[in-house]
Parts: sequence; C-alpha cells; structure tokens
Amino acid sequence: MSTLNNQINQEQFTPTQRTSIKRVSQRGHYERQLIYEILDEGLICHVGFVVDNQPFVIPTAYGRVEDKLYIHGSPASRMLRSLLTGIEVCVTVTLLDGLVLARSAFHHSMNYRSVVIFGTATLVQGADEKLEALRAFTEHIVPERWAEVRPPNRQELQGTLVLSLPITEASAKVRTGPPLDDEEDYSLSVWAGVLPLQVVAGDAIADPRLHTGITQPDYIQNYTRLYVESE
Amino acid sequence: MSTLNNQINQEQFTPTQRTSIKRVSQRGHYERQLIYEILDEGLICHVGFVVDNQPFVIPTAYGRVEDKLYIHGSPASRMLRSLLTGIEVCVTVTLLDGLVLARSAFHHSMNYRSVVIFGTATLVQGADEKLEALRAFTEHIVPERWAEVRPPNRQELQGTLVLSLPITEASAKVRTGPPLDDEEDYSLSVWAGVLPLQVVAGDAIADPRLHTGITQPDYIQNYTRLYVESE
Repeated sequence: MSTLNNQINQEQFTPTQRTSIKRVSQRGHYERQLIYEILDEGLICHVGFVVDNQPFVIPTAYGRVEDKLYIHGSPASRMLRSLLTGIEVCVTVTLLDGLVLARSAFHHSMNYRSVVIFGTATLVQGADEKLEALRAFTEHIVPERWAEVRPPNRQELQGTLVLSLPITEASAKVRTGPPLDDEEDYSLSVWAGVLPLQVVAGDAIADPRLHTGITQPDYIQNYTRLYVESE
Repeated sequence: MSTLNNQINQEQFTPTQRTSIKRVSQRGHYERQLIYEILDEGLICHVGFVVDNQPFVIPTAYGRVEDKLYIHGSPASRMLRSLLTGIEVCVTVTLLDGLVLARSAFHHSMNYRSVVIFGTATLVQGADEKLEALRAFTEHIVPERWAEVRPPNRQELQGTLVLSLPITEASAKVRTGPPLDDEEDYSLSVWAGVLPLQVVAGDAIADPRLHTGITQPDYIQNYTRLYVESE
C-alpha cells in the first residue's frame, strides 16, 4: 500500500557511490520520472558486463514495466548466460538531442539525455511476467503493435530468455541549451548555436511478401519517437 | 611502406575470441571499410570498462583518424583516469536503421549496424597527434567546422586528456532487410515491413548571444548524418 509519504520518497533515487554524477555534477539527475521518460524514449540500450575481467558492451532492445527493465534473447546468448550468473551489470541508454557548436573548438559539446542503471539481473520465470515483458518489448518499439500481431506461442516463450533488472540504482545525465563560450570568444565572427537532432521515421517499406489489401496502420504512418505516457 | 599485399591483408580484421560473432553469425562482419563507415557515421560511442569488478558504460563523443579511435575529456574524468591504468576497454558504436515489424511478436527485430572494439587505450602525448585528434573530434561531428572556429590554446590543450584506442580488434554486426516470419504466418492479415529510422537535423537554433550579421554556414544548413568519405 503506497502512502503519500512513500510516493514522495519514490520520486527520487538516492545517489550511490556508483550512480552519483561526479563530473559536471549539475548535469546529474535522480528523478524517477525523468529517468523513466529517457528509458521510454530510447530504443536501444547498451549492456555492460564483465567476463574474466574483460568488459563487453552489447547493444540490445529493451522494455520497461514500472520499475523493471527487461532484456531478452536466445538461451544461447553469451550476454544473457553471463548475466544469469548474477554478475554486476551496467545498462546505459543515451538520447542525442543536438550538436552544440561553440565559437571555440574546445567548447563544442552535445546536448543529450542519458540514463545509467547498475544492478544484477534475474531470470523471469513466471509465465505471466514473461508475457508481460514480451508485450513491453513490442509496445516499447511500436505502441499499439502488440494487439495486432500473433502472440508468442508456447515454443517461442520457452525459447526466449527474459531477464529483469530492477531500476533502483539509476541516474540520469542531461545537457541542454546553447554553447557556453569563453567570454572573450563571443566577439568572434563565428556562427554558434545548437543543431537539434532527432530520430525520425522515414516512409515504411512494406514486406515484399505482404498480401495486397493490407493497409499500413495509423500507428506506423504517424510514428514519432517521443516520450509516450504509458498506461 | 604499404605493399599491395599488405593492403589486402589489412582489408579484413582477423576475428579473435572476443570479436568473433557467435549469435546469428551471418550478421558478423570484419571488413575494415565497413567498420570505418559505421564509426564515421556514428556520433556517440559507449565505452565499457571495469573498476573493482564493476562494469561502467559511459556514452561519449569520439573521433577516428585512420586506425585509431580517440576519446577525450577532463583530467578529472573517472573514465579516462581508469582507462589510463591500462585496463581493458570495450567501445561500441550502434546505428539504428529501422524497426522490423513482423507478423508475430516473436520475430520483431531491428535493423542496425554496430561496431565493437576491444583493446587498451593509451595517452596521446605528442602535441601534433593531440591536435590532430582534437581536429578529428570537431570534424567528426560537423565536417568543415574546424577551419572556422578558434583552435585550442595552450591551456586548453593541456587541460584535455586525449586517449587513443587502436582499431585492430574489431567487428561489426549488421542486420538489414525485411522481417523473417514463420512460413505459416505469412497468411495473417497483419501489416509487416520495415520502418526506417534516421538521425535527422532540425532547424539550427542560433546562440542567443550570436551577433547580428553572422549567417549560418552551409555545412549547418545542409547537415546530414551520413557516411562522409574522409580526406
């Protein structure tokens, strides 16, 4: 049962040794809502893990349901098999919002929003949670898609590993706004500003084997990659 | 001195234990040219390293000059200070090219191109190489920019750490093309295909402190994030 007090406490993550933003600390954020928005807008996460002291960084799809981040794959995946041994994992999601063009080379930068989550992942064993996670993967990349496609059958469910990472030790780092030049450089005759970047969908390419008469759904035609309030 | 023989050998990286693509191995590629193209089109890399058995995955800008990948930052950066101790690093660059919408939830996928580089980074100490790396950072995000901006002064050069990672142990993973559905699913009345995604620049936002009369350069107005043949 959540009380108002609980809700307030849950709005903000407590920075830990691992998640506290040290460099340019004013860019560090710990609000749950902001972290969820970044996770929900991103499409790819980068999963970091260690095997024999060797770091691996693997891009993969993900889904979020409340305070859990799900990743999935084949039981043959080295990444998933490694994570299942309970080793530490670091999952990072980065959204690039713009190029920051200063008057000096030194002050060039990027506007971005990133989230880093630390923890250990566990295998999702319950059939209901597994199906919910798979729904989240599909709905995460294309909202409204799940209701339309053939759901996973028993064999597919058994042939998919789903791992759950609690979003409890997490932080965001955000840069926004114009370049910050050295005071004396503002007099230079150099164009300065921000070039915004966005992930944009082009025209959908129908599967060559698509039967005639099947029209493109609205959720494809109007696809935009912006934060969508879920549920 | 490069001979024809050398050039041929250098066109392809030799897969190692770390770089050989095991899952869906037909997506694995080792051609130098492809790997360079992906690195040159990307804007952000994710740097993986280990401190006290804890993996960290940090997004950062980068530049490439021939067979070297450069990253940079403040001498106070935990990431750079850690890498300078000679620990193993994994750098990953991922380009997301499209959402692959199958008729079944299970076969949904993404079209992407990613590169993973393993190795150890070293401090760039020579002034010439350091300046060349800084030029590469700027030109990497906005070609033609370097010639126009104030170059780094002595203090800025001294206040920037530049690390070099040799691109020798590297592999790419690429998925292209339409969804691959189970044969019996092709009869379903579900739209299927690929929704292409691209990083697109919006209208540039001039710095509020930009002096009147400074016009937006062509390289900003016509900015596109596609592979640009360098030199």
